[in-house]
Amino acid sequence: MTSVKSKPSDGKPEEDVVDPWTVKAVDDKGVDYDKLIEKFGSKRIDKALLKRFEKVTGHKPHHMLSRGIFFSQRDLDFILDCYESKKPFFLYTGRGPSSEAMHMGHLIPFIFTKWLQDVFDVPLVVQMTDDEKFLWRLADADEALRLTYENAKDIIALGFDINKTFIFSDMEYIGSQPAFYKNIIKIQKCVTYNQVKAIFGFNDSDNIGKISFPAIQAAPSFSNSFPQIFGEDDVGKTPCLIPCAIDQDPYFRMTRDVAPRLNYPKPALIHSVFFPALQGAKSKMSASDPTSSIFLTDTPDEIKEKINKYAYSGGQDTEEKHRKKGGDCEIDIAYQYLTFFMEDDARLEQIKKDYTSGKMLTGELKKELIIILQKLVSDHQKQRKAVTEKMVKDYLTPRALHFKSK
Amino acid sequence: MTSVKSKPSDGKPEEDVVDPWTVKAVDDKGVDYDKLIEKFGSKRIDKALLKRFEKVTGHKPHHMLSRGIFFSQRDLDFILDCYESKKPFFLYTGRGPSSEAMHMGHLIPFIFTKWLQDVFDVPLVVQMTDDEKFLWRLADADEALRLTYENAKDIIALGFDINKTFIFSDMEYIGSQPAFYKNIIKIQKCVTYNQVKAIFGFNDSDNIGKISFPAIQAAPSFSNSFPQIFGEDDVGKTPCLIPCAIDQDPYFRMTRDVAPRLNYPKPALIHSVFFPALQGAKSKMSASDPTSSIFLTDTPDEIKEKINKYAYSGGQDTEEKHRKKGGDCEIDIAYQYLTFFMEDDARLEQIKKDYTSGKMLTGELKKELIIILQKLVSDHQKQRKAVTEKMVKDYLTPRALHFKSK
Repeated sequence: MTSVKSKPSDGKPEEDVVDPWTVKAVDDKGVDYDKLIEKFGSKRIDKALLKRFEKVTGHKPHHMLSRGIFFSQRDLDFILDCYESKKPFFLYTGRGPSSEAMHMGHLIPFIFTKWLQDVFDVPLVVQMTDDEKFLWRLADADEALRLTYENAKDIIALGFDINKTFIFSDMEYIGSQPAFYKNIIKIQKCVTYNQVKAIFGFNDSDNIGKISFPAIQAAPSFSNSFPQIFGEDDVGKTPCLIPCAIDQDPYFRMTRDVAPRLNYPKPALIHSVFFPALQGAKSKMSASDPTSSIFLTDTPDEIKEKINKYAYSGGQDTEEKHRKKGGDCEIDIAYQYLTFFMEDDARLEQIKKDYTSGKMLTGELKKELIIILQKLVSDHQKQRKAVTEKMVKDYLTPRALHFKSK
Repeated sequence: MTSVKSKPSDGKPEEDVVDPWTVKAVDDKGVDYDKLIEKFGSKRIDKALLKRFEKVTGHKPHHMLSRGIFFSQRDLDFILDCYESKKPFFLYTGRGPSSEAMHMGHLIPFIFTKWLQDVFDVPLVVQMTDDEKFLWRLADADEALRLTYENAKDIIALGFDINKTFIFSDMEYIGSQPAFYKNIIKIQKCVTYNQVKAIFGFNDSDNIGKISFPAIQAAPSFSNSFPQIFGEDDVGKTPCLIPCAIDQDPYFRMTRDVAPRLNYPKPALIHSVFFPALQGAKSKMSASDPTSSIFLTDTPDEIKEKINKYAYSGGQDTEEKHRKKGGDCEIDIAYQYLTFFMEDDARLEQIKKDYTSGKMLTGELKKELIIILQKLVSDHQKQRKAVTEKMVKDYLTPRALHFKSK
């Protein structure tokens, strides 16, 4: 289990806990990301890198980049080198299909990945880890596969280019591509139980599927897992960039350790912060608790009610006090959500100023968010409705992809 | 590591060691199989069972059965029940392709399995665990796959019916049959690291591929790993019988523990003793030591020289002493080999009598064996030569099989 020390409380030092299955912050403001970067050994995305990004790509950084939602990286410089010198690379992200209704937090990496794909014009592979979900949580393997198809609709609804995007179920793709399984066992051979115990906190009572799973999440980092995309002669030399929430980093630290031993390039990474639960950065967002987040199936009224009722407020108890002391944006969930979804930088800045000064009340702040979320969710619902079974099948069919650098 | 206590030596009790990777006997006579049966919890194949076998199938038991070379079983009675009541079942055996040249010992389970298939007229699946060989021994995954194809030729040369036999490479079949991978993760979910540590002697420095591999050897026990054979609607209810050397039993003890939790029938087993090295039952037979066994590529002269030069003799030092005291068949390797390969019971009995009494000399005994092995090996070489690449491809292609009970 990867943990980051935080301030002590009742004598004992409490720690943030961040691993692929647990995110637990000690502080109301959420996880201490500076400490996490230090602990994980990644790098902050600084202004110089953002400037280079804009220069090399000709695109103004996405607001999730400029606002530090995607805040940490490994070898992003190298990917920009590739782009600059017109060398091919690809994007890899994924999702563990855990429940039918995805929530707004689940969309973050996909919204950002779609933007990266548009900017870079490169192939994208999306791994649906239905085997992981079966090994950890679900009683039924077929149910895990069904959820892959349900969740894939939400991902496709974001508008990924069919000609550049391959979405795959582990349970199906491992069973249809020997090159993928070959990479899995190559990785497994390089990783001991001691290592996964240290990295993921596994223990001797864990099932052997969990213990070997990290190799399965690692394998799509290597391009020869996808001969249909990169050609039968590909020997795994095309590097990839992985956008993901930082709790997934342990998988890819492991992958980066293994890569040189297999003569493959290390995957580059770009990490996001966590999307907080409505109840605040310390609470856990849960698909089984409908009040903990905004779901992609929520109606406009449900969104309104949830934000007004449950969104943890940084405002003061009374209007009088608020007008005088102002609200605290750092812990205010409605404000936090706006940083994820409001595209207009100037408007967001104004809101922060007005809320902090007490000019803007909590209800007014929440209204800004409600309008944005209602539109995002209802647009998403429309787009998802337009996703046909045939489209899902097409995105999930292993096939050649078309992209500029090919 | 599974071990069986044997007699003490220099203060410390020495033990036979029997697991899928190590067979080490303390005594010149080899492994103490009575103790092994007790330790593993299997059952001796007794006369009553042999009698029933003959009655139910109408076939005289194979000499490897009647002579106790296949000596132990689990649920063989149940398989005979199935045969008697015309309920379908199948055979499953396998091989870890470790080197190009297979030796005589490698043939034992296949010779016997072919006989079982002829008697029962049921489908047979043969797993080539090239992934295991890569995870344990070979540097190169492609080399492991190549050895699968080389070794498959030796198996096919034995004359398995193409219409009833499916041979598969793990590295290829896992990558081409999602139903197989689904069974693998279902099994993995039921087995903890603690369990594989206890059963197989794994330790924390072992790679995670080894740790999860037992599920891969377990999975072909369940018929729904082969929808192409048993139909897309098969739910894994067709039982199987696994002929194998007893060192493979730990895999299937584990499989039998898991089966009821997955609502599958437990695999039945029929176990053979180990084929001894030329140097004696205590020595390890090794594909990398050409003097340790007779290889399927040996010439008639090589066979003659190896038997004469290396086969550990139970005879006396001088002819005079031998004539008086006689030879010891229990430790004589040439005699042991005859029990595996000489089909004529009466002749074998006579040899035993004459050798034990001193009437027959070691050289004469060895000559009997040399003639049999020269014929077996040269016949095999002819049959192997007749195996075309197309035939290999056909046997290794997932497809429907034809058999009586279908």
